[in-house]
Amino acid sequence: MNLLAPIERIGRDLRTGGYRRFAWNDADMELREWFAGEAAARGMAYEEDGNGNQVAWWGLDRSAPRPAGVSAPRPAGRDAPRPAGVTAPRPAGVSAPRPAGRDALLLGSHLDSVPDGGAYDGPLGVVSAFAAIDALREDGFAPSRPIAVACFADEEGARFGVACAGSRLASGTLAPERALSLTDRDGRTLAEVMAARGRDPQAVGRAEWLGRIGTFVELHVEQGRSLVHSGDAVGVATSIWPHGRWRLDFTGRADHAGTTPMEDRRDPMPAYAATVVAATSRAASAGARATFGRIAVEPGGANAIPSRVQGWLDARAGDDLALARLLDAVLDDARHAAAAAGVRLEVAVESSSPAVGFDTALRERLAGLLEAPLIPTGAGHDAGVLSASVPTAMLFVRNPTGVSHSPEEHADDADCASGVDALAAVVRELA
Amino acid sequence: MNLLAPIERIGRDLRTGGYRRFAWNDADMELREWFAGEAAARGMAYEEDGNGNQVAWWGLDRSAPRPAGVSAPRPAGRDAPRPAGVTAPRPAGVSAPRPAGRDALLLGSHLDSVPDGGAYDGPLGVVSAFAAIDALREDGFAPSRPIAVACFADEEGARFGVACAGSRLASGTLAPERALSLTDRDGRTLAEVMAARGRDPQAVGRAEWLGRIGTFVELHVEQGRSLVHSGDAVGVATSIWPHGRWRLDFTGRADHAGTTPMEDRRDPMPAYAATVVAATSRAASAGARATFGRIAVEPGGANAIPSRVQGWLDARAGDDLALARLLDAVLDDARHAAAAAGVRLEVAVESSSPAVGFDTALRERLAGLLEAPLIPTGAGHDAGVLSASVPTAMLFVRNPTGVSHSPEEHADDADCASGVDALAAVVRELA
Repeated sequence: MNLLAPIERIGRDLRTGGYRRFAWNDADMELREWFAGEAAARGMAYEEDGNGNQVAWWGLDRSAPRPAGVSAPRPAGRDAPRPAGVTAPRPAGVSAPRPAGRDALLLGSHLDSVPDGGAYDGPLGVVSAFAAIDALREDGFAPSRPIAVACFADEEGARFGVACAGSRLASGTLAPERALSLTDRDGRTLAEVMAARGRDPQAVGRAEWLGRIGTFVELHVEQGRSLVHSGDAVGVATSIWPHGRWRLDFTGRADHAGTTPMEDRRDPMPAYAATVVAATSRAASAGARATFGRIAVEPGGANAIPSRVQGWLDARAGDDLALARLLDAVLDDARHAAAAAGVRLEVAVESSSPAVGFDTALRERLAGLLEAPLIPTGAGHDAGVLSASVPTAMLFVRNPTGVSHSPEEHADDADCASGVDALAAVVRELA
Repeated sequence: MNLLAPIERIGRDLRTGGYRRFAWNDADMELREWFAGEAAARGMAYEEDGNGNQVAWWGLDRSAPRPAGVSAPRPAGRDAPRPAGVTAPRPAGVSAPRPAGRDALLLGSHLDSVPDGGAYDGPLGVVSAFAAIDALREDGFAPSRPIAVACFADEEGARFGVACAGSRLASGTLAPERALSLTDRDGRTLAEVMAARGRDPQAVGRAEWLGRIGTFVELHVEQGRSLVHSGDAVGVATSIWPHGRWRLDFTGRADHAGTTPMEDRRDPMPAYAATVVAATSRAASAGARATFGRIAVEPGGANAIPSRVQGWLDARAGDDLALARLLDAVLDDARHAAAAAGVRLEVAVESSSPAVGFDTALRERLAGLLEAPLIPTGAGHDAGVLSASVPTAMLFVRNPTGVSHSPEEHADDADCASGVDALAAVVRELA
């Protein structure tokens, strides 16, 4: 059974087979309705915070006010009728009382995509969380603490450029005024776009519900081949590589491609190109990663020398120092290339995340529970953002090709089912 | 007086100050109306051929059928009332009888632009042609042969990728079926776009009116600084460099920017970048020109390795052999870069024009008449296309910065007036 079948048509580009689910676009709105409907169908209390993060609760009666236009499903909390088997034995290992207001266990991930992204990515974590809850309820499991399922807004940052915007805003690591002034490719600000979807830009910022979370476990498809090599369906993350996104603006002078001698040009394209070549070689020799996946060229005519080339550098490395060294070297290359071409270079940091080591005790406990290998990842996640304030762990589900952020991304149904089983086991262990 | 004032607001982007007049877009339609109105205001017979080329006639009563939706101005031919001074003396030097059906003298240029193009470019040639006719009529000059003013369609090729599409179609050097299937960035074909503007795609092809043309003189702003160096307001073209446009499609595999080791990638961007670097260096050392002004990246997300990079190469050189050598070397570089990155390379020729030497007798005669220097150009023009079948010359008007295809393009009012005077003198000389 394909866990993702219920949402497989939403936001899919039939030409490429990839997904185009970007913050607050039509596909994103349809996914929001789907998530709220899943909460309602399970009698889970539902809320959307001011940043667009969606949360469904099992075992917590939420009566927080809801934003306009978001229908409140019937709340069903700990006092709601339970399925049969309520007296299932409490799992061992959960005895320490938790501080008041930090009692809930959070599951979930995100539903948005990169341009032409794959079907699994974050969505697997959301659907697996609901599926695990269904399985636990069917077994009559009664959690000793509230369980929440979240869908974080704009994890990929595909539209406004800042990855994990929803979790960063909710946890206070992204300033609301900065987020609201971010623009998409059509020049619309996040504030405008949220307002057009009936959301109040004034409500953006730290989210109260996060204060209830004592543990976060995010399940995600693996974006690499570690599990293929180890032969396991499920793994536990050790750490997230430090990573960031820098926009390099090379500004020259538009001119005629036919009549302007090479020596009279101020052409930003060769400067950009030399930077890409240098960054690729530096990242390869450092065992790091550098990618230029997005570019904007003005004016963009085939017979006009560009006036400006904007290139986005995504850089990652195994530790903070290695990343800093890579970035220094690449920006140095870019400055030299710009000077050689007679163009101006400006660099803007769009996002930057230090290395994240997940909670050591938690990851060891889950790896032992699941008999799963511990593996690192180069990808950023909401789990990385929340790990600064909440004990956090990640589970990965095997990806046979390792390919991700592409329509070719895949996970076998059997491995997805193993992911659900693992998540259910984690809930039994922790709740 | 700024000759271009009547059309200066049409298609101008107020943010950049540049023009966005592309084949059949709203600005282009408005310019078409303006041209037809200028013909009508002068009592000139007007026609639009099946390719969208517009022609206004002085001294020829055209009653050719007109396409739907194009209002026919009152025709006024050689029998129409003339302004005073009709008996002005015939200029010397025009005695040879011309073959029947090849008697007309054609002036004009084009009104479309590259993205964010300048105000002068081709439009200077169109407005100067009307201004020269006004001056000649005011002097009571009576031409001994019909005079036509043309505005050629889609000279820049900014929308459908093929430069000089209007003159190529009219002269039979671009196949109608190829032109009609060209697509713009939104995937619309030229056939669809023309039909939506009330034009009949079946009418695209060789134009009957061109058979009447015995000489073509195109005035254009200079796109370089030869006239600044020589100290002249007006020059005469010797030749157009051979040039062409090639689309290089580098196809790799989309993947996650964070989790895919450099050595496992099939990333087309570094292959594209290495090609740009190599082409720039080769063109510089060969005294030739290579430009990558347009690019399309899929999927185009900052944290996704691209699946495809399309780069447009505009290449030009002083003679056909030099261009062939440059192109061979650059495509070789591209193939090596693609192989090194594990990506596929496909190359499509979008247009290719051999060197054009303008009619030797005509250019010498005009240079003598105007006491103007003879200068070459690296830019393609409709004059280059027509010169294969019609004795053709070009006049250039001084451009103080040499910058073109940019909002910074400029010509002084006094130099523009000299261009009109020169064009009027050419008409006196040739008609």
